[in-house]
Amino acid sequence: MSYFDESRSAETVNSRMGPGTDARLRQVMESLVRHLHAFAVDVSLTQEEWEYGIGFLTRTGQMCSDERQEFILLSDVLGFSMLVDAINNRRPKGATENTVFGPFHVADAPVRQMGETISLDGKGESCLFQGEVRDLDGNPVEGACVDVWSDNADGFYDVQQPGIQPKWNNRGRFYTGPDGRYAFVGIKPVAYPIPDDGPVGQMLGQLGRHPYRPAHMHYLVTAPGFQKLVTHTFVGDDTYLTSDAVFGVKSSLVAPYERLEGAETLWRSDYDFVLVPA
Amino acid sequence: MSYFDESRSAETVNSRMGPGTDARLRQVMESLVRHLHAFAVDVSLTQEEWEYGIGFLTRTGQMCSDERQEFILLSDVLGFSMLVDAINNRRPKGATENTVFGPFHVADAPVRQMGETISLDGKGESCLFQGEVRDLDGNPVEGACVDVWSDNADGFYDVQQPGIQPKWNNRGRFYTGPDGRYAFVGIKPVAYPIPDDGPVGQMLGQLGRHPYRPAHMHYLVTAPGFQKLVTHTFVGDDTYLTSDAVFGVKSSLVAPYERLEGAETLWRSDYDFVLVPA
Ligand SMILES: [Fe+2]
Ligand SMILES: [Fe+2]
Repeated sequence: MSYFDESRSAETVNSRMGPGTDARLRQVMESLVRHLHAFAVDVSLTQEEWEYGIGFLTRTGQMCSDERQEFILLSDVLGFSMLVDAINNRRPKGATENTVFGPFHVADAPVRQMGETISLDGKGESCLFQGEVRDLDGNPVEGACVDVWSDNADGFYDVQQPGIQPKWNNRGRFYTGPDGRYAFVGIKPVAYPIPDDGPVGQMLGQLGRHPYRPAHMHYLVTAPGFQKLVTHTFVGDDTYLTSDAVFGVKSSLVAPYERLEGAETLWRSDYDFVLVPA
Repeated sequence: MSYFDESRSAETVNSRMGPGTDARLRQVMESLVRHLHAFAVDVSLTQEEWEYGIGFLTRTGQMCSDERQEFILLSDVLGFSMLVDAINNRRPKGATENTVFGPFHVADAPVRQMGETISLDGKGESCLFQGEVRDLDGNPVEGACVDVWSDNADGFYDVQQPGIQPKWNNRGRFYTGPDGRYAFVGIKPVAYPIPDDGPVGQMLGQLGRHPYRPAHMHYLVTAPGFQKLVTHTFVGDDTYLTSDAVFGVKSSLVAPYERLEGAETLWRSDYDFVLVPA
């Protein structure tokens, strides 16, 4: 008997999977069905709410295009992306923590000389970013690629404003030498809203939440023999630091920003990266 | 402090809702976030699986059109639609059970004389459907509208084959008199697949499941002073009876189909409907 019965609905659905079903797929689907059904029972989901949900998911899918991924936004604002990131990047104490990759990375940014600037549009408050890439034992990591990207002073990544910002504005790759040190000039990043003109933005509005991310510099640090590190550093005095729309902030990722008096560069932010063996 | 922390990720997300959030919306979202996060933790969802999920949801949304609702199909094949239907239609013993509405109802079907046929294309094995509409105390319900629809002998609803089937083929509305009885001639319904050329069909394939629904006659029974009844009756010897792709079968909805010897009509299916006060 596998007729439907409210009291064992998830079991009934899961029992239908064929014997040849991939073991991992079976495990994922069983859990998904159990949790979805438990949700509906928990809240006694009404028919009208179900219809609203179907409509919401449909609008979210139809908002997606080559330039816009509304389902990733949805995952982000529900903290789901951060949770998946955390589950897959549990690291020993002392290692730099991961955070979400975000949609604005572009592969193969220009490789620049250590200390060079990534700000090509001349906008914003200049800032020297520097520090060391090392391993868990404190040894400098030579040949690490420090791939960095940030928004410009108006809160937009270059790829959001083609034709307005120069290509590769606020992006660059830097390779460490034997001392493991990196340094580059960029701008003090500014807070920006995630795209909020779609269903996800509407949902945020209904939940009384704003769409802003606190100011951050993105880092992708890779080195032979080490795990890939995807992270940001955050500007410590940002208004949105404790209310990041996508929950990307971890306390260990809040970096110092020191005002430099009488220097050409206005700010300095020191941050070291500690990598974990692959 | 509301920085992200894997161990209390759902609480962090839920704590962000504003004080003005609608109480019911808050309750639904809190539960949804809790269950989604618990799912990811349960199965240690990988980054690649997350990406697959984002892609799947996106394809599902983009399959939707005026003629096709792929998210409803998804809800259906996960048993979610049936669960929501069950939660919202708990009825006292003796009352006829609900099942899913399905996408093929058309409002305002022709009102026909009691006993008339709904089969306009002359295809299929004719069947007399008859019975009584009554209340929980056994009293006949006068003035009940019995709105019926089924596929044709080829397994398609008329709306799936405009120009091929006559309009209103295998559809009609019948109003009961003082005896509460209804009767009409249709065809013995046949099993049919749900649309399986999209992401949901692909998923069914990966899960080793077929897309078929066992043969059924749809009923929407309404009467002043009573709860709306949305249900089907199923043909008892159908191959797919215990593996309905959308889990619509309940044992109380399996109807007898009696072969009539020497009569013009080939089959007879008796079924009574018991309504619950509104
Ligand atoms: Fe960013
Ligand atoms: Fe149907």
